Amino acid sequence: MIYLASKSPRRTELLTQVKIDHEVIEIEIKESLNPAASAKENAENLSLQKCKEGIRHILSNKLSIFPVLAADTMVLLGSDIFGKPESKDHAMSMLMQLSGQIHSVISGVTIGVFSKDQADFHSISAESFVEFGHISAFECKKYCATQEPLDKAGAYGIQGYGSAFVRGIKGSYSNIVGLPIFELVELLKKLQIPY
Amino acid sequence: MIYLASKSPRRTELLTQVKIDHEVIEIEIKESLNPAASAKENAENLSLQKCKEGIRHILSNKLSIFPVLAADTMVLLGSDIFGKPESKDHAMSMLMQLSGQIHSVISGVTIGVFSKDQADFHSISAESFVEFGHISAFECKKYCATQEPLDKAGAYGIQGYGSAFVRGIKGSYSNIVGLPIFELVELLKKLQIPY
Repeated sequence: MIYLASKSPRRTELLTQVKIDHEVIEIEIKESLNPAASAKENAENLSLQKCKEGIRHILSNKLSIFPVLAADTMVLLGSDIFGKPESKDHAMSMLMQLSGQIHSVISGVTIGVFSKDQADFHSISAESFVEFGHISAFECKKYCATQEPLDKAGAYGIQGYGSAFVRGIKGSYSNIVGLPIFELVELLKKLQIPY
Repeated sequence: MIYLASKSPRRTELLTQVKIDHEVIEIEIKESLNPAASAKENAENLSLQKCKEGIRHILSNKLSIFPVLAADTMVLLGSDIFGKPESKDHAMSMLMQLSGQIHSVISGVTIGVFSKDQADFHSISAESFVEFGHISAFECKKYCATQEPLDKAGAYGIQGYGSAFVRGIKGSYSNIVGLPIFELVELLKKLQIPY
């Protein structure tokens, strides 16, 4: 059993898909980026902050002790980081920028493991590349009307209607959804965490 | 509205994901490969045969006239074509061959459109590449016990537990699941089929 310190239903689905027994804990952190660090460092650092908050949550609520998994996913176009859009207009602007381009998706993943009186943290990250076809203004508007883009980094869901825009990808698909499964399973094995 | 001449629940899910209104029609064909043709030609040809059978089904059952979509997906390792495994042992043998290797997945797709007294057929194909990590004999056995490999070309489901074996892909993800969404949407637009 592990704890998943993320409200994302997509991460829960991915863990369920590979039969990793888990329980969701809800945590809140202020997600601020360090402009001096790379996207990869920012993603790993945000996942680490979420994981630490998860550990605090477990200790303060006196929950049973199990490892804590946290992740943060961001979309990168050139040097611009795209988080979740703040409005429908913001989503449309993001999508029109991604139209016809190759962008990258980076997930930072941290597992926190209790060891004696402290917690040890292990962070990794994965990067995948996504090529979008051309999106017309009409398709973009229609897509934004579905609400799907609003809670997603880069304003699209590759596991939803957004897949119609994706010409192809390179790298891990689950990473683009929000959690790199292959890399996560490797990390669980390395840390000898049963799953 | 279109007809989907395929029993695969994964193809229905993919069409639903991109909101393509469809109805499943059940057809049966004898799937035999032409050893003189390429995998791409075989996949397109099998999808064409399925589509023709779908058209026959509609006419003989006097169903309403709508376009018919059919597809065939195969896994290719070197020059060996992997279809669905015939048994658990066959599935294990396929997976051990795919372990640590890059293979390709080819889907042939045909849309049949009624025009006056005849049907016109339009076929395309898509190829994606999949890299597997090393699969231990224990993991392979455990995976085959889940039954997931048994109804799938190449003995794995990338949308299921099989994703834990996938280090990365190159190309269309939906094509690996069984229907290349981006290419299908392009074809529907080209044929001016509303979806």
